[in-house]
Amino acid sequence: MGGVEARLARDADLVTVALDELLPRADGPESRLMEAMRYAALAPGKRLRPFLALETGRMLALDGRSVLRAACAIECIHAYSLIHDDLPSMDDDDLRRGRPTTHKAYDEATAILAGDALQSAAFEILSHPDTHDDGAIRAELVLKLARAAGAQGMCGGQMIDLLGVGDDLGTVARMQRMKTGALIAASFELPLALAQASGAKHHALMGFAQDLGLAYQIVDDLLDLEADEADVGKRVGKDAEAGKANFVTLLGAEAARQRLAVIAQQVKAHLEPFGPAADFLRETADFVIHRKA
Amino acid sequence: MGGVEARLARDADLVTVALDELLPRADGPESRLMEAMRYAALAPGKRLRPFLALETGRMLALDGRSVLRAACAIECIHAYSLIHDDLPSMDDDDLRRGRPTTHKAYDEATAILAGDALQSAAFEILSHPDTHDDGAIRAELVLKLARAAGAQGMCGGQMIDLLGVGDDLGTVARMQRMKTGALIAASFELPLALAQASGAKHHALMGFAQDLGLAYQIVDDLLDLEADEADVGKRVGKDAEAGKANFVTLLGAEAARQRLAVIAQQVKAHLEPFGPAADFLRETADFVIHRKA
Repeated sequence: MGGVEARLARDADLVTVALDELLPRADGPESRLMEAMRYAALAPGKRLRPFLALETGRMLALDGRSVLRAACAIECIHAYSLIHDDLPSMDDDDLRRGRPTTHKAYDEATAILAGDALQSAAFEILSHPDTHDDGAIRAELVLKLARAAGAQGMCGGQMIDLLGVGDDLGTVARMQRMKTGALIAASFELPLALAQASGAKHHALMGFAQDLGLAYQIVDDLLDLEADEADVGKRVGKDAEAGKANFVTLLGAEAARQRLAVIAQQVKAHLEPFGPAADFLRETADFVIHRKA
Repeated sequence: MGGVEARLARDADLVTVALDELLPRADGPESRLMEAMRYAALAPGKRLRPFLALETGRMLALDGRSVLRAACAIECIHAYSLIHDDLPSMDDDDLRRGRPTTHKAYDEATAILAGDALQSAAFEILSHPDTHDDGAIRAELVLKLARAAGAQGMCGGQMIDLLGVGDDLGTVARMQRMKTGALIAASFELPLALAQASGAKHHALMGFAQDLGLAYQIVDDLLDLEADEADVGKRVGKDAEAGKANFVTLLGAEAARQRLAVIAQQVKAHLEPFGPAADFLRETADFVIHRKA
C-alpha cells in the first residue's frame, strides 16, 4: 500500500503543478475571481480522480501530456463541485480539509463564480489542441466529461442528495452512481478515449470504475460515521445529523462493511484483460477500500 | 426593422424547439433539476445571441443543423448566467421578464445546480458528433465558447460588476467586453469556426461583434435609466439604485446617446467584406441600437 500512497502523493504534485500552469493568473480588476479559483483548485487534496486517470494512462501507455491535461480537467470539475456543494444553500460547510471553504475565505458570490469559471476551464483545457492532435478525440473527451458532470451525472446526483433519498437503497445507489460515480468513471473513460480503446478493455475498466466508485462511497459513509473531526478535517457524522440516508445509515455499519468486503473481492476481477499491467490499479483498489481518510 | 423583429421571433421559436429537444427530460428522483433547467432555458426571451449566430450562419451559407446546435449551446450558457446572476448573493433579483427567477420558482440550491448543469449541457451539445462531422471543428467550438464563458470572459466580467467599477470608464468598458461582449462575440465566432473562416472575414465580423456588443450595453444602460418596470418586466434603475457605475451613470445620458450615435455610424462599416450578403446584419445593428426593451 506504501507504493500507492507514494505515487498518489507524487501524482498529486504533478497535477498541482500542471493546474498552476493551466489556470488563469490573477490579473486585472477581476483578479479576485482567479484567486478564488486557485484557492479552491490548488488546495491540498488527495487528487484521487487525477491519480486514477494518470495510472490508467500509464497502464494504457498513453502520451503523458495528454493524460495530465485530461486529469487536470477532471480535477477542475471536482474542485468546482466542492465549492458549490459547500455553499450555504447546499451543504453549508465552513471547512474543507481544515481550511475555510471558498465562500468563507472569499464570499458567496465569488465562490459561485469561481466554481462556474472552473467548469469552463475544464472544457477549455480538454478542447485545446495541446491536449491531443486529433480533434475528434478532444471532442470526445469534452463529451464524456460534460455528461459525467451534468444533469444526468454529478449535478443530478447532488440534486438527489439535496432532496433526500428517503429510506430507499435504490435511490441511494443511484445518487452515488451519479454524484461521485460519474466523475470517478470519467477518470477511466477519458484515458480510454485517448487510447481509442473499445470492446473488452473498455467494458472491463468501466466495470472496475463502477465497483471502485461504489466502494469509495461506502468507505466515505463509514468514515463519516466513525471518524472524528481531527482525522478528516471537516464536520463528520453530518449525514446522520442532517437526517440524510446513506449506505451506512440504511444498511447499518456491519452490513455496509460486509458489502464492502464483497466488492473488495470482485473489483479486481474486472482487470483480468489487462494482465500484470493492471497490478497497480489492483493495489489502488485495496488502497481505496482500506483508506482511513 | 419589421423584418428583423419577425425573423427574431421566428429564430427564437426555432431555438426554443431545438433546446426542448436537446435538454434532458425530467426523469427519476433528480427530475426537479431538469425542470428548473427547462424553466430557465425555455423561458420566453429575445434569444438575441442565438439569433445573431443563426443569421451569421445564413450569411456564411452554413449547414443549418450545425449552427442551430451552436446557437443552442450559446443560449444554454446565457441562461445559466442569468440564473446565477439573479441569485441572492449576486444581483438578488426576484423577477426576470415578469416571471419569478429560478431560485424564486424553485430554491437557491436547485437554481445553482440548474445553472451548473446548463453549462455542462452547452459543452455536451457542441462536442456531440451531431454538431459537425469534423471533430477538430467541434473541439474549436468548445474552446471558443469555454473561453467566452470563463474567467477571462463572462465570469470575469460578472466579478468586476460585483466588485464595482468605481468611476473608471476603462473598467466599465472592460466589464462590458467580458460580461456581455464575450458571449455576443461568441455568437459570431462559433459560426466563423464552423465556416473555417479566417483572415479578413474573421477580423471584420469580430469588429462588428465588438461594436455591436458595446452598443447593446449602452442601450441597456439607457433603458435601465429610462424604462419603467412594466416595459421591461424587471426592476429598473437598479444600477443607479445600487450605486453601480455604468456607461450612462458615468458619461451621463446625453453623452452616452452621442457615443451610441457614433457607434451606429461605424458599426456597419465592418461588414463591407461581405457585400449585400450582410444586409440583414446591418438591419440587425439598427434594430439593436434602436430597441426599446
